[in-house]
Amino acid sequence: MKISLLAGVLAALPCALAVWPIPQTFVEGSSNTQVYWVSISTQGDVGPIVANAVERYRTIINRESFLAPADYRRGELPTSGTFGGLTVSVDSTDETLGLDTDESYTIDVPVDGAATLRAKTPYGAVRGLETFSQLVTANGAGKAIAKTPIHIADAPAYPHRGLLFDTSRNFYSVAAILRTLDAMAYNKMNVFHWHIVDAQSWPVESRAFPELQTRGAYGPTMTYSYGDVQRVIEYARARGIRVIPEFDVPGHTYIVGESHPELMSCLNKQPGWDQYAAEPPSGQLNIAKPESVAFANKLIDEYTKLFTDEAFHIGGDEVNRKCWAEDPDVVKHMAENPGEDVEFLLTRWYSQVHDHLDQTGKTPYTWEETVFHSQYVPSSKTIVQAWLSHDSVVNAVGKGYRVVSSSYEAYYLDCGHGAWLSNWDGNSWCDPFKTWMHIYNYDIAANITDAAQRKRVLGAEVAAWSEQTDETVIDPRLWPRAAAMAETAWSGKADAAGHVRTTAEVASRLHEQRFRMVARGINAEPMQPLWCARNPGSCNLPQQQ
Amino acid sequence: MKISLLAGVLAALPCALAVWPIPQTFVEGSSNTQVYWVSISTQGDVGPIVANAVERYRTIINRESFLAPADYRRGELPTSGTFGGLTVSVDSTDETLGLDTDESYTIDVPVDGAATLRAKTPYGAVRGLETFSQLVTANGAGKAIAKTPIHIADAPAYPHRGLLFDTSRNFYSVAAILRTLDAMAYNKMNVFHWHIVDAQSWPVESRAFPELQTRGAYGPTMTYSYGDVQRVIEYARARGIRVIPEFDVPGHTYIVGESHPELMSCLNKQPGWDQYAAEPPSGQLNIAKPESVAFANKLIDEYTKLFTDEAFHIGGDEVNRKCWAEDPDVVKHMAENPGEDVEFLLTRWYSQVHDHLDQTGKTPYTWEETVFHSQYVPSSKTIVQAWLSHDSVVNAVGKGYRVVSSSYEAYYLDCGHGAWLSNWDGNSWCDPFKTWMHIYNYDIAANITDAAQRKRVLGAEVAAWSEQTDETVIDPRLWPRAAAMAETAWSGKADAAGHVRTTAEVASRLHEQRFRMVARGINAEPMQPLWCARNPGSCNLPQQQ
Repeated sequence: MKISLLAGVLAALPCALAVWPIPQTFVEGSSNTQVYWVSISTQGDVGPIVANAVERYRTIINRESFLAPADYRRGELPTSGTFGGLTVSVDSTDETLGLDTDESYTIDVPVDGAATLRAKTPYGAVRGLETFSQLVTANGAGKAIAKTPIHIADAPAYPHRGLLFDTSRNFYSVAAILRTLDAMAYNKMNVFHWHIVDAQSWPVESRAFPELQTRGAYGPTMTYSYGDVQRVIEYARARGIRVIPEFDVPGHTYIVGESHPELMSCLNKQPGWDQYAAEPPSGQLNIAKPESVAFANKLIDEYTKLFTDEAFHIGGDEVNRKCWAEDPDVVKHMAENPGEDVEFLLTRWYSQVHDHLDQTGKTPYTWEETVFHSQYVPSSKTIVQAWLSHDSVVNAVGKGYRVVSSSYEAYYLDCGHGAWLSNWDGNSWCDPFKTWMHIYNYDIAANITDAAQRKRVLGAEVAAWSEQTDETVIDPRLWPRAAAMAETAWSGKADAAGHVRTTAEVASRLHEQRFRMVARGINAEPMQPLWCARNPGSCNLPQQQ
Repeated sequence: MKISLLAGVLAALPCALAVWPIPQTFVEGSSNTQVYWVSISTQGDVGPIVANAVERYRTIINRESFLAPADYRRGELPTSGTFGGLTVSVDSTDETLGLDTDESYTIDVPVDGAATLRAKTPYGAVRGLETFSQLVTANGAGKAIAKTPIHIADAPAYPHRGLLFDTSRNFYSVAAILRTLDAMAYNKMNVFHWHIVDAQSWPVESRAFPELQTRGAYGPTMTYSYGDVQRVIEYARARGIRVIPEFDVPGHTYIVGESHPELMSCLNKQPGWDQYAAEPPSGQLNIAKPESVAFANKLIDEYTKLFTDEAFHIGGDEVNRKCWAEDPDVVKHMAENPGEDVEFLLTRWYSQVHDHLDQTGKTPYTWEETVFHSQYVPSSKTIVQAWLSHDSVVNAVGKGYRVVSSSYEAYYLDCGHGAWLSNWDGNSWCDPFKTWMHIYNYDIAANITDAAQRKRVLGAEVAAWSEQTDETVIDPRLWPRAAAMAETAWSGKADAAGHVRTTAEVASRLHEQRFRMVARGINAEPMQPLWCARNPGSCNLPQQQ
């Protein structure tokens, strides 16, 4: 009982600033401020993004009556001042959102009177509003801000803090996507990498090739119209989240064959698909056919317009040589053109498609295989997405490319769920399950010491591949694990004193964030028994302390 | 395209009987029967259980318009007869539900006219109604029963097909429990093993010791009143599901110490809990104190009345010797009574508590440690729950005990989710994740050849330990994997011809069951991309075929 009572006493103290992700710098006081009603106003011209965000957070904060699990026995905080509203101002109303967007902000909450949130851009203000919403806690019948006066100065460690969302293996409603964008905003994530099509289905409308959707969507209700896409983009932008679409070519394209078999190689080889693709159904655009270049480039023309972000992901992962080597058109081409083998054709294909994408003015993203496993050399403005190992990050920055890490070793949220091929009682290739602790401990910039190279590490992305995931399970598959990545990408691995944060230190704060997300309608999964969340430090392994 | 079209053609054929779990014997015809409206009537006296089940299934079937994913391209079935209603009759209206309850039934659906469901007991009729509900499929604007005439004769392979549900590590609302009971009924599972209390919280009301709940529940809204328990029991019984409560003693009882520290040993040792318990917080009933026997027996008196099933689970897993060896009372007792060491005290404690439980007339369940890791010898009517390995099943039946297998190697649904101690970036002790294929391939009676011993294997239980699970995630954690176990426990491992069913053979039918469960409001997780569900056999590993 003694220890239990002690835990109760500790829990009764107002906790230190518990914002997730933790701000770069903050100073907290020892008073508490009573909050009767959260009024938020703007100073000067702030633009529609900020105006909307103010509305949104006013609703969230006034509706919310959140108490962290570790504070469950906390009595009412004694307050010595009254909150006098929050005033938001921005230096610029430029609502351009991209890799260079400044997301910094400062917050000052006095013990008594008006608080201020200042940002350079509208998106900095959006981040600051999320931080401010996490400062307000339930207190008796009302609310309070603990540990005032508070000063926060914050900015992200990395400019790309993403989530890859796969809507092809299984379909997700627009509502599920919007809910996911909300959850991303709660964690200051800023890139929704929409892996919108893959081999299994083509949910998105195409006006250039309507048959892709009519033949390739899982059904008439399992589609994204132009209007749906625009809605997702606008909803994301309002939260400072970029939507980077991926149209993965030339592999992972079986579904194109449902309407355009003439463009394809090795279409749905059965049985024996495993010799032609990483997963069923097999099928790749036919690199011997100029029509497949024209097809890809017409898609690029269409979708670089529909998707307004400065970046565009052209895929390029897991292409299979055997698929082409056995293709009759490729075989014929090689016979007629000595020396022009699969590698030659693939390199030419890449150059024709990547050149076209470059000409649209977009920043291309491509999977690491394009750089490391082909002879093609993408333009220097290309951003490489590494996934096969941390070495890929090191190698990409070494080659002068900018890189985003979604290393499967840490960031593949689908892993550890066992294999999914019907006749195999085995594990998945990327076991084990990536725990939040494992994700949190991962360092995307490990072993990169050169400052210029380090700067080319743009950030991290968790990936929610959807072979075993759909709308029924997406929330707990993503959260709170994606939040663990989000903190390391926003706050960095170390605090201002250079101390690398440990999972034991941050667990209580992540519990708080998880319960906050649940209170906001996101079905984030529990990290531990509630007893552990309420008794910080009591569920650690002693030998590791 | 050729192969894809072929798959379409195959999918257009009405599928073979797709009931999950598959009936022991069934004969199907080659006609299809039109269903305009599902009327279900009863013949003779059937009793309230059947009358309620008829109401329930009439609603389910008429509301449902379910088409299996593999049938998505199927045209309207040509029908050559019209369904004339289902008539349900039972040989006996005895509503006693227990291990010996006969769950057999027969169903006959002619091409034209009235169908019949006959059962020996009301619970056989409940099982048959579930089967019948799965025969009805969407057909154009209406419904149909495919492959008539149909004759089914069915009965379970094992009498105990259970789910362990842990409401202590994290809390579940009554609504979540009722939804889970619905899902169990959809899979003909018949035992809800309610692991209702454990170290972390004591949600259930006690009238003998009200302080257990008031001090031990996670909060006033996270409780089960007597009325809640009775509601769960009645809801389960209506679905032919027994509720076997577990009050785990003497280990896993920290929470008793919140109100009765005087009964406890090694209460919440911090740090260093790992020397005293399998997980935090540590704490065991003090075996040196007669008061702890009196306490346990008073709980038995109370809860054997509240929980009306013929069986009662008394726990007994993972007791820690060091916890007692260092306890001052135990040390004192040993000093004063030479020879009466921890093993002696534990054996005496077990005998005083088990004898008391035996005297209530209940059938005791206990975890295998009581039999294998203590010197106590439970009465022969005790049912052993094995979990540490398949050898435990073999050994238990060898000792003459009846046994239920919840081997962690196959049936621990929480496993493979990584460790949950805040400061450890590692896996869980019971990795990897148990896939439905792994669960399906497991044989609880493997290597038991003696007929009498084999008969003592009563069945199987999947376990949903809740350290990393609560209401946000329970549906996908349980389903469809629990359904995989359910089929092996109801239908057995082999068909009538002795052929052991393979996961490749049953995958399509389990997909159908998964989507049916989703249609019925259970958030079962997807097994594969929808493309695989729609194209049976296309997502197998070729080498394994």
